[in-house]
Amino acid sequence: MISRVLVADLPRHVGERVRIAGWVHRRRQLKTVTFVVVRDRSGLAQVVAAGSGWPPEETVVEVEGLVTANPQAPGALELTEPSIGLLSEPAEPPPFDLYRPRLRAGLPTVLDNAALALRHPRRKEVFTIAAASVAGFRSALDGLGFTETHTPKIVSSATESGANVFGIDYFGRRAFLAQSPQFYKQALVGVFERVYEVGPVFRAEPHDTARHLAQYTSLDAELGFVDDHHDVMAVLREAVASMASAVPAVGVVVPEVIPEIHFADAQELIARETGEDPRGEPDLAPAHERSLSDWALREHGSEFLFVTGYPMAKRPFYTHPDPGRPGFSNSFDLLFRGLELVTGGQRLHRHDDYVAALAARGESGEPYRDYLDVFAHGMPPHGGFALGLERWTARLLGLPNVRQATLFPRDLHRLTP
Amino acid sequence: MISRVLVADLPRHVGERVRIAGWVHRRRQLKTVTFVVVRDRSGLAQVVAAGSGWPPEETVVEVEGLVTANPQAPGALELTEPSIGLLSEPAEPPPFDLYRPRLRAGLPTVLDNAALALRHPRRKEVFTIAAASVAGFRSALDGLGFTETHTPKIVSSATESGANVFGIDYFGRRAFLAQSPQFYKQALVGVFERVYEVGPVFRAEPHDTARHLAQYTSLDAELGFVDDHHDVMAVLREAVASMASAVPAVGVVVPEVIPEIHFADAQELIARETGEDPRGEPDLAPAHERSLSDWALREHGSEFLFVTGYPMAKRPFYTHPDPGRPGFSNSFDLLFRGLELVTGGQRLHRHDDYVAALAARGESGEPYRDYLDVFAHGMPPHGGFALGLERWTARLLGLPNVRQATLFPRDLHRLTP
Repeated sequence: MISRVLVADLPRHVGERVRIAGWVHRRRQLKTVTFVVVRDRSGLAQVVAAGSGWPPEETVVEVEGLVTANPQAPGALELTEPSIGLLSEPAEPPPFDLYRPRLRAGLPTVLDNAALALRHPRRKEVFTIAAASVAGFRSALDGLGFTETHTPKIVSSATESGANVFGIDYFGRRAFLAQSPQFYKQALVGVFERVYEVGPVFRAEPHDTARHLAQYTSLDAELGFVDDHHDVMAVLREAVASMASAVPAVGVVVPEVIPEIHFADAQELIARETGEDPRGEPDLAPAHERSLSDWALREHGSEFLFVTGYPMAKRPFYTHPDPGRPGFSNSFDLLFRGLELVTGGQRLHRHDDYVAALAARGESGEPYRDYLDVFAHGMPPHGGFALGLERWTARLLGLPNVRQATLFPRDLHRLTP
Repeated sequence: MISRVLVADLPRHVGERVRIAGWVHRRRQLKTVTFVVVRDRSGLAQVVAAGSGWPPEETVVEVEGLVTANPQAPGALELTEPSIGLLSEPAEPPPFDLYRPRLRAGLPTVLDNAALALRHPRRKEVFTIAAASVAGFRSALDGLGFTETHTPKIVSSATESGANVFGIDYFGRRAFLAQSPQFYKQALVGVFERVYEVGPVFRAEPHDTARHLAQYTSLDAELGFVDDHHDVMAVLREAVASMASAVPAVGVVVPEVIPEIHFADAQELIARETGEDPRGEPDLAPAHERSLSDWALREHGSEFLFVTGYPMAKRPFYTHPDPGRPGFSNSFDLLFRGLELVTGGQRLHRHDDYVAALAARGESGEPYRDYLDVFAHGMPPHGGFALGLERWTARLLGLPNVRQATLFPRDLHRLTP
């Protein structure tokens, strides 16, 4: 049997008999001829056959045929004089037409039938872009001397906060799903100086919103020997620029220097722009993030904006304070098109500072014993960030719901497929 | 302040004053002089200082000094006329000496203090080799047209079998931690044809052995449009060869064609070699795997051996039978230095075959409804494999316990750190 040719490679075989294999994307039977579009991982190809008798859409077939130039055909060529072989049973009709330019189905139907809906070229493309973005992320950090790590997802105590955590029965003991690799990546700065992890994190989000998931893919990085959070932001800029470069067709530009505004200045700007007065609030409202992004695009031509120096009150206990500005922190968010895409900052690195920070919040150090112990044994000034992959892809492609950028989403209501 | 130089780059700065930063790896105070070895992510450098007053081991410091050639010093150079700055509090002494060529501590102590033990250069190296191996795996599969995916780790029913699964309270419902991405990667063959995933899998292993973990990192791949399991084995060979090439210092050679022996022939060989008669057994005992590996090394000069055609009785229900040999399957294991490293094979791809396979095992199709549905909608012949990262690294480096190849292992007894 002649070996399989991918559809994308057909232009190199005009005039030859080849074998392609894929799914019957579309079958149109006319009076004396049938037009069949075959879909493989590389694209779509039209096959023209005399008569009828072709299997229904989504059946897997292999087709031998003559590659024939035809300016009217999609891609200006088609397969003629075909012979067909079935590689699957004739397929049952999917709950929506996969051959239409857009999936005509509501989000619940799309997600209930995710494995089929993902076959639609526009759905599929979301995840090839996500995969390329992750490759770009790793490539940037590998080039900067980072080491990739894999840390426990089953932990003995809640990491980020006591709420929103999934409990597990761990050999008869109580355990939890990790909400982030935060403590591990910090500890590993003591080993590798620079680490990253691409992996699942788990949040028992009780809210049913368009931007929260019970499991998402977190791109985490942490680095030692920083002066302050600006060293972390510089690495993040490289990572995001490399992610954007990995998907050139999307056309997002990350400026050489991403504009930056301090939280306090951002609040003043919002007050001037909107007439509202957010001063005294410890965080930014979603509408204010959008307003700041508009400002950055207008004033700096940038779709990205760093907001720095968030008040200590709203940041986690391991956040490093701004030594020059009481109440504020060496932390940042990166806004992208009106939405918080990344959170990061410098962390505390002295053991005594951790003990004091927990005491100030009225928390016992006991649940953090292993974590705190690391800081008693010599840890450099360090910081890091976490970027949600699904949020990135959704924002990049203008998808209104983060579930559209998740292969098989998990949320308050959804545990299958 | 002059910018930091990594220790590995010092040879380019002989005669210059530079700044290095890292951990006090070793401090030796003589009568009038102190020798300090500083450790950073790139290596070790000796600093020679008049007098005493240097902080204890593991304290994080920055040192400015003159790079001076000295044939007696490690690396033939040292920093003289140093001035020192503290970047952490003076460190508490670790529970073992990190500066000795080998960690003198038992495995429980090493694992109880993992974040510190990992600072030992020989411990650290295990995980830089693991990271490079994963990069090699991805690089091979990216080059072969695979797409990287991220699938749910929280699932509604046990995947591989009902046993050894962790239960979760999922918003008041019962859910489970995924034992593998098996069903998702198969479904995604219907979308991308070729997929891989690097991620955590979870096994509630009730056995306390040197080769089982409750969480490990699985390198999973699955590909469509195969003739049989040999197409899967060919991709696996490329992946493992790329992993080995990524760690050239380890010196493992993957043959162009990995030798292969059928399960039935393997049993006859074992009978001849050992005098035992394993025929009739549906699987290989660990001692028999070792014996087969010895044979492959002796007869074929290969540390890798494919055993193919395992009896259907011991393989999961989705295994494709050998159409020419009743009772046997189109499956394989890859043995590496006497241990099963990879399991894989061709899968069923017709809906009716799944229904029949489950019925033959007396299982209801209901828990597999979403999974089975995919096969009613056109799936090509396909197959795949799963490789345990920690097992690979342990075997590669001759570590007797897989926990030594895990940053922070999880097992029957261990939930921290």
